[in-house]
Amino acid sequence: MEKQLEAYLHAHIPISKSMGITVEPSSLQKVILAAPFENNINHKKTVFGGSLHAVATLACWSLLHLNLKDLHDHIQIVITKSHIEYLAPVEGDFKAICHMPEPDKWQYFLKTLQRKGKARIQLSAQIHYNNKLSVDYQAQFAVIQIKQ
Amino acid sequence: MEKQLEAYLHAHIPISKSMGITVEPSSLQKVILAAPFENNINHKKTVFGGSLHAVATLACWSLLHLNLKDLHDHIQIVITKSHIEYLAPVEGDFKAICHMPEPDKWQYFLKTLQRKGKARIQLSAQIHYNNKLSVDYQAQFAVIQIKQ
Repeated sequence: MEKQLEAYLHAHIPISKSMGITVEPSSLQKVILAAPFENNINHKKTVFGGSLHAVATLACWSLLHLNLKDLHDHIQIVITKSHIEYLAPVEGDFKAICHMPEPDKWQYFLKTLQRKGKARIQLSAQIHYNNKLSVDYQAQFAVIQIKQ
Repeated sequence: MEKQLEAYLHAHIPISKSMGITVEPSSLQKVILAAPFENNINHKKTVFGGSLHAVATLACWSLLHLNLKDLHDHIQIVITKSHIEYLAPVEGDFKAICHMPEPDKWQYFLKTLQRKGKARIQLSAQIHYNNKLSVDYQAQFAVIQIKQ
């Protein structure tokens, strides 16, 4: 699953390849994306805030993408907004982790999608560095059934 | 000024070069960064949300960087948080524009920096596509005097 997701990201979102993003051992419950320091460095020799945001975004998008696999031909996943807090600098290779939301939220999202043909879901991702929470990221995605 | 800023971004934040970011005619009042569709495309053939966020972030950072030029050896500019709303898809080359905040806000920020050795400022950037506001971005930056 990891190699397939990584190849998909690199092929369809080429900036993910420029960022050096790789997929760590993941599951339907948790997606972990890694990225090297070198590709994402800034003028202060820390990781550029835009790269931290992009990797967190792709971790959340990937979790949704994997969990909605059976519906891929019938839906579109769209990010509608996101909020990021930069709590501490990241000064080396890093990983963004996105966990599945609580089961009741996920079930409500799926039922709404089925009933209304569209639904929104909040996802979050975190980046730890040196055992400290460095980045806290939240995003809202809309999933829309494609009319056929 | 534009060529100098562009060279600085490409040299110190290499992912800005991978994104193909260029600096459009800008001033101390308004920074415009452009990026090509091709480098920033996603699986839906629209611009990846992470790229839109990164270009908006760099537009705001650049405005601050240019306006605080005289202080460069004495300060650090750090992004502390940002919020982005994706209002409509961007399906081609795009530009992010960041304007100077209102003069009273800027003066308050400078006075606080002088008095306390640190200050925060809110900046915003917008991306229009097809004459429509597609991305509305807000960020908070902290500027900190370096002890010498």
